[in-house]
Amino acid sequence: MKSGKISNNVIRRLPRYLRKLDELNERGVTRISSFELGQQLGLTPSQIRQDFSCFGEFGQQGYGYHVSTLRGQIASILGTDRGYRAVLLGVGNIGHALMDNFCFSEWGFHLAAAFEVNPAIIGSTISGVLVRSMDELGSYLDENHVDVAVLAVPKEAAIPVTKELEAHGIEAIWNFTNVELTEPGSSTLVENVHFSDSLLSLSYFVSERNDERAAHAARAARQ
Amino acid sequence: MKSGKISNNVIRRLPRYLRKLDELNERGVTRISSFELGQQLGLTPSQIRQDFSCFGEFGQQGYGYHVSTLRGQIASILGTDRGYRAVLLGVGNIGHALMDNFCFSEWGFHLAAAFEVNPAIIGSTISGVLVRSMDELGSYLDENHVDVAVLAVPKEAAIPVTKELEAHGIEAIWNFTNVELTEPGSSTLVENVHFSDSLLSLSYFVSERNDERAAHAARAARQ
Repeated sequence: MKSGKISNNVIRRLPRYLRKLDELNERGVTRISSFELGQQLGLTPSQIRQDFSCFGEFGQQGYGYHVSTLRGQIASILGTDRGYRAVLLGVGNIGHALMDNFCFSEWGFHLAAAFEVNPAIIGSTISGVLVRSMDELGSYLDENHVDVAVLAVPKEAAIPVTKELEAHGIEAIWNFTNVELTEPGSSTLVENVHFSDSLLSLSYFVSERNDERAAHAARAARQ
Repeated sequence: MKSGKISNNVIRRLPRYLRKLDELNERGVTRISSFELGQQLGLTPSQIRQDFSCFGEFGQQGYGYHVSTLRGQIASILGTDRGYRAVLLGVGNIGHALMDNFCFSEWGFHLAAAFEVNPAIIGSTISGVLVRSMDELGSYLDENHVDVAVLAVPKEAAIPVTKELEAHGIEAIWNFTNVELTEPGSSTLVENVHFSDSLLSLSYFVSERNDERAAHAARAARQ
């Protein structure tokens, strides 16, 4: 299905498409045009057609896209049907929140285990997942296939834990620590979670609205 | 500085530019070409020039961009110099993690107060911020200027708390609840934090690498 290298920007838009298609599915919408989809996502229809053309044509001229088919195809491109297994490192506030509230299985992931250094938490089960001692991490990884490590340890532990993960064959890290984990050129795939990106977008929209209102008030005062 | 409506996609890229420029600043890089900046961000030079042209020209032909000047201008466009005041609703795992680890001031925000229903936490101070009773929310908002509410309450409380926020003049919400807060057409600005977006991107990159390795192994087997 995939043809050649897909650009980073297209890949970054795929999860947004997926969420939008899930929402349409839930609302009972079965088909949608690239025009309408574009309107709902703030993209042009040609941008959308171009994005989808990177991995084969889904739409039909004059019909648009079949929502659940397109949803399935994008999900498959993103690898949600591959049964990836994850482990969580660090059951502090963020780690605990992920175990409680983030639905790994909804995105095709199985959270197989969590690891923590705090003896008060080790041995407990959170949302059905056993919290193990960080001391067991190496042997666990040697004995179990794990695709992705979710890193939610304190800043000081980020680099040492990453080194241990890499030493035991982990090649993909979902990083909540705000620490730059790897040197440029490292083969480990690291996906950093940046809370600030969405706050800054909101900050922009608030500023834009404030400016519009100020301009409106200034015009009104001149009249 | 701004001319007309900036597209949503450009706005979404601005925080990424800001982070990259911060990183360059830290590494002591003082100027950078659109070519080099593009390479580091996976964007084309013309895309970058086009993005920046939306709000005026920063670069100089043959010189490139002055890193700290460009950083300051993007930060200003995003509103980080406007001194926005935020309050946090819900001091559970996510709320607590934000108070402990998220540096609001780095992005120009002042976290003025937090609100919680759990009496065991009310009255405590976390990272210098007082946790108040949720009962005080309305009167606090009536007496204090607040630009943004950070919503980290349990799912069940998301809609009622949003209604109370709106009733007391809050028009921008940074939403960690995974609940669709407003009806289409609402004037409240809502920015949803989607953890899944970054996990799915990682899932894509893991899949891509697995496929490349499988293809490589298949070629090797045929030889």
